[in-house]
Amino acid sequence: MGAVGPDPAVAAVRLAVRRTLGMIEVGDLVLVACSGGADSLALAGALAFEASRSGHRAGGVTVDHGLQEGSAERAAGVVAVMADLGLAPAEAHAVTVGTDGGMEAAARTARYTALDEAATRHRATAVLLGHTLDDQAETVLLGLARGSGARSLAGMPAVTGRYHRPLLELGRDLTHRACHAMGLVAWEDPHNRDPAYARARVRADVLPALEKDLGPGMAAALARTARMLRDDADALDDWAARVRAEAGTDEADGTVALDVSTLTGLPRAVRTRVIHRTAIAAGSPPGTLAAVHVEAVDALVTGWHGQSHVDLPGRVRVRRRYEKLLFGPSETR
Amino acid sequence: MGAVGPDPAVAAVRLAVRRTLGMIEVGDLVLVACSGGADSLALAGALAFEASRSGHRAGGVTVDHGLQEGSAERAAGVVAVMADLGLAPAEAHAVTVGTDGGMEAAARTARYTALDEAATRHRATAVLLGHTLDDQAETVLLGLARGSGARSLAGMPAVTGRYHRPLLELGRDLTHRACHAMGLVAWEDPHNRDPAYARARVRADVLPALEKDLGPGMAAALARTARMLRDDADALDDWAARVRAEAGTDEADGTVALDVSTLTGLPRAVRTRVIHRTAIAAGSPPGTLAAVHVEAVDALVTGWHGQSHVDLPGRVRVRRRYEKLLFGPSETR
Repeated sequence: MGAVGPDPAVAAVRLAVRRTLGMIEVGDLVLVACSGGADSLALAGALAFEASRSGHRAGGVTVDHGLQEGSAERAAGVVAVMADLGLAPAEAHAVTVGTDGGMEAAARTARYTALDEAATRHRATAVLLGHTLDDQAETVLLGLARGSGARSLAGMPAVTGRYHRPLLELGRDLTHRACHAMGLVAWEDPHNRDPAYARARVRADVLPALEKDLGPGMAAALARTARMLRDDADALDDWAARVRAEAGTDEADGTVALDVSTLTGLPRAVRTRVIHRTAIAAGSPPGTLAAVHVEAVDALVTGWHGQSHVDLPGRVRVRRRYEKLLFGPSETR
Repeated sequence: MGAVGPDPAVAAVRLAVRRTLGMIEVGDLVLVACSGGADSLALAGALAFEASRSGHRAGGVTVDHGLQEGSAERAAGVVAVMADLGLAPAEAHAVTVGTDGGMEAAARTARYTALDEAATRHRATAVLLGHTLDDQAETVLLGLARGSGARSLAGMPAVTGRYHRPLLELGRDLTHRACHAMGLVAWEDPHNRDPAYARARVRADVLPALEKDLGPGMAAALARTARMLRDDADALDDWAARVRAEAGTDEADGTVALDVSTLTGLPRAVRTRVIHRTAIAAGSPPGTLAAVHVEAVDALVTGWHGQSHVDLPGRVRVRRRYEKLLFGPSETR
């Protein structure tokens, strides 16, 4: 404060929040999702500060996942800190975490349901999330392990619907310094260091090994990669959707037909995406349909030597009949 | 040999070579580039075996980079092994490695020049290279550190011109086992373990850390990613080249003009590629032109508020004049 201005880390976090607020109507309510960790706490502090200057209303929500001893008390503590910062509403939401798709995925689903519900109830235009450059880099590395192409390497978007991630280009070290400078005491989630979680292992081992061996700019390089591959995936998905709309016909019996001649003229990246989305439209479950299935269908187009059909998960059978590729149920009825 | 058939590792390497030979005219000469390391030695052994059955002629070339003590003697040893395998010609080529772009890049340039020269002189249709799945995974990780998008993550192609990489889907452990089973003694290049080289560090630390933390399929996942991102980059580069040809006009004074209205309608992934290739056509050097420059030019299209111009490396200036983007020399003449 005063003549020297705020700490540089605080200034960086505030600038990021200011840019986000610039996209949101003045007078609207903006909520911050705050776990009490350094990232979202710095975000909450910066939001309270900036919103009072920009004329936005600012509130905060913390989600109590009920997964750790004392989580209710901690949530109450986060609410007190948010209220102290001047955020209103400042509330805790207790959720029940299921088991679908593993604990991390179930916790995420429960968290977003609670945030959606809070945003709707308070008529908030935007919800700010505290993900940083390091979170983005970890997400890319986790996607790399799946080996399933551009979309899985595209990381988290800066904006989806009402969710904004203002800190996506700032390193995690900065949020820690900003909390310290703002006098905010961050909570360290023990899950972040628990080697039972893939993300915690990436954070503790993989990213440091990459930075040591390939240079300190690794997290930034991964985040840059994510941004570029997201653009690539968007462009190619749009192209494939257009082709699917133009070259696909839905037959009366539920069969979907694609023109082979149209497919042949496409680059492989688009052709495989058209096949992928047609298979899903025909009933193949997205989670089980793999690259190897798509490649087998692709061979009906590019390497046809009379193969009778390819069977896909979800009892979808793809047959080639002259210049058509037919996606239908695998049983004869 | 005999009733039980060959060792499974030998069978896998031979099958990979057989597939490659299937793409090459019978009777043609196929050369293998052999360093004496396990990968290329297994490849040489499999080529000698398969070519004698398929009716191809098979030869081998080893390149002596002259960078290590005793490299000439080692090259002579590799020639003797290749001749023993029945490869003809079996020759060593001594090259002089410069310093342009660092030692690794200079050695590669000298090596490919020698291989090109040998292939041309012997009228070989194909040159086989011993790169494995692990090499591909390392290449992807090195590209990741650059953070420059799909093309830098696309790894090495299975085929470029006369160069073929039959082992690109086989793990390095397999070539070691195949050499052992064929009674071939591989040489271990000390450079492969020298931490002065980024690739050696990736091999020793990064890939093992990834496999430990994210699962043993990491190298295969990286290779699969490379294949998919190569397809993506090909499709988007083609699209951008088409747009550049249609929307770009070369003015008499060497200025290149692009229609803003065409650019506006494109997905970002394509627009930035069109800008990138137009900047290079206008004289900006590919090595220095970075994403940040392309983004600044993109802002002349998508976020124009009267910016006068953007200067690019190589004294290229981009100005917006009404509905045109003009790429020209930065000096007024």
